[in-house]
Amino acid sequence: MITAAVKWVGGVDGFLELVDQRRLPGEFVKMQCRDIEQLYEAIKTLTVRGAPAIGVAGAYGLVLAIQKLKSQASISDAIECLKKAVEYLGSSRPTAVNLFWALKRVEDKAKDFAVGQTNAALSKLQEVVLGEANAICQEDVDMCRRIGENGEKFIKDGIGVLTHCNAGALATAGQGTALSVIFEAHKRGKKFKVYADETRPLLQGARLTAWELKQAGIGATVICDNMAGWLMKQGKIGAVVTGADRITANGDAANKIGTYSVSILAREHGIPFYIAAPSSTFDLNIKSGSQIPIEQRSADEIRFLGSERIAPDGVEIYNPAFDVTDAKDITAIITERGVIEKPTPEKITEHFKQTVDN
Amino acid sequence: MITAAVKWVGGVDGFLELVDQRRLPGEFVKMQCRDIEQLYEAIKTLTVRGAPAIGVAGAYGLVLAIQKLKSQASISDAIECLKKAVEYLGSSRPTAVNLFWALKRVEDKAKDFAVGQTNAALSKLQEVVLGEANAICQEDVDMCRRIGENGEKFIKDGIGVLTHCNAGALATAGQGTALSVIFEAHKRGKKFKVYADETRPLLQGARLTAWELKQAGIGATVICDNMAGWLMKQGKIGAVVTGADRITANGDAANKIGTYSVSILAREHGIPFYIAAPSSTFDLNIKSGSQIPIEQRSADEIRFLGSERIAPDGVEIYNPAFDVTDAKDITAIITERGVIEKPTPEKITEHFKQTVDN
Repeated sequence: MITAAVKWVGGVDGFLELVDQRRLPGEFVKMQCRDIEQLYEAIKTLTVRGAPAIGVAGAYGLVLAIQKLKSQASISDAIECLKKAVEYLGSSRPTAVNLFWALKRVEDKAKDFAVGQTNAALSKLQEVVLGEANAICQEDVDMCRRIGENGEKFIKDGIGVLTHCNAGALATAGQGTALSVIFEAHKRGKKFKVYADETRPLLQGARLTAWELKQAGIGATVICDNMAGWLMKQGKIGAVVTGADRITANGDAANKIGTYSVSILAREHGIPFYIAAPSSTFDLNIKSGSQIPIEQRSADEIRFLGSERIAPDGVEIYNPAFDVTDAKDITAIITERGVIEKPTPEKITEHFKQTVDN
Repeated sequence: MITAAVKWVGGVDGFLELVDQRRLPGEFVKMQCRDIEQLYEAIKTLTVRGAPAIGVAGAYGLVLAIQKLKSQASISDAIECLKKAVEYLGSSRPTAVNLFWALKRVEDKAKDFAVGQTNAALSKLQEVVLGEANAICQEDVDMCRRIGENGEKFIKDGIGVLTHCNAGALATAGQGTALSVIFEAHKRGKKFKVYADETRPLLQGARLTAWELKQAGIGATVICDNMAGWLMKQGKIGAVVTGADRITANGDAANKIGTYSVSILAREHGIPFYIAAPSSTFDLNIKSGSQIPIEQRSADEIRFLGSERIAPDGVEIYNPAFDVTDAKDITAIITERGVIEKPTPEKITEHFKQTVDN
């Protein structure tokens, strides 16, 4: 079973169902989100996380925003209400580009509908907003599936596959990106083993990826990040697949801290290294990885484990959220449009020229 | 200030003082060990850890063992008592080669004294036992200092130094091995920065190494193990220094899991990689690293952090205690006897032929 992070239940009067990711792997709890204040909190506290999942959740948040308006409310009142909700939800995670994009797309659709519709019923607008949120969600589901279909050929029977962090269903409305590749290979009956880097400091690999693999009935082994090289040395890894947060015009890929080291270790041991990510991850305005700003996160993520102090006070902590893997160390980038082998600026430009068959 | 793990306080009626390493870095508590049952517990629970420190603690344990004998006790009673204590303390950590070696050395010394001494006072034997334990302790202190003196030249002014796990004063009766190199460079007024890998799963780098560096007034930064490669890529690391648990005849070195990956990343970035360890770490009966058995440790070390579950039940865990760094990736091995640059079987044989000036 593959459990997506986000799901809408019902019609315009329905609700948003989120997997509470803070409680995994200890407890599997689905949370019902029935107003935008609740959703704001859920995004802020990482109850829902992963760029595609947050975007879809935000889109459905706009359905919630106009759900409680009185049926006599005018279309322009509803548009005003949406506008405020876009601003409010957008402030829940100021770096989430996908969230702004999804909110704006739904708002624009609503505005287009509203033009000249002074007397239309509110319920019509609600249908339009839900329709657009559903479209965003469905596109995400399709994108995930196609990434998996495009990438599954790289998972050979009998190998060990290493992944880092969580690029799974829990980060999307579908079956994930890097894990979609693994899920599709599994669906085709291939036998293989997956090693999940625990991924310090926030342990998304141990907490989320291992849980997803177990739910899907795929044999999973959790390792500490510092064990990956030794596994490779012993010939236990046949492929590495990770997601990406941002890919530049030359194919350099920013992803969770630690991915860079894994890419070097993979090359050293002659192991192919794949990035699986939606084509929306590409930022073609940025030439190369050296221009990607790297967010520094709170020292306390490393200094404390729960309430226990593990590093002494007065000692510095270095906690970059991401690192950048060089295009030359990426065997292929897998998107919903296809595969870019040994990425170069020219191949990437070409990739975006191709039309996508649906 | 440098705080050794183990110290004897007083004469034959004295006690053994241990730093309680389970409580660092939260609390710095010195524990007084006054009988061998207490010492057994301390070794078993990792209150005292590190091969040299456990050896010295065991030796002093034999002083404690015969401390409470009535003054009328015969020498042969005392020898019998020592024999039982050797067996008992030796069972506290069945893989600790240093512990058996130290216990045997003190027992042998006592037996040598006892030969034909049917009427000697017990107090004389107690002096002999304490004397030998003190000798072992002093040799450890000297060994540590000399490793530091031999290696400090590799720490250049202004660089960043990376270390993994804890090979510090807390693992010895002196100032450590890898950290001794750092302490000696610091004493000579060199300015540099130390990055400590937190070292999952047991976090000895974050808990112990960072604490030791802070106590010594050396600028320390804790990183997650998966961040070391990214620091190297940015040019922030000028040298890597780690300890070793076992070095084979060809120079391959077993050390805490993760060391192998660090050695590959160091080579990739053109950074020298040093091992600092006493010459007793060499096992010349073993030809190469592939013959070193690798201990697998409990899954719960990774599955739980304190009482919190971080990996789901029903998922496998891989938890090797050590990995093996190839001799070809070691720039130099630093011992108390000197330095073996680019280690080969021939150079190692030569190293052990040299006499050591005191």
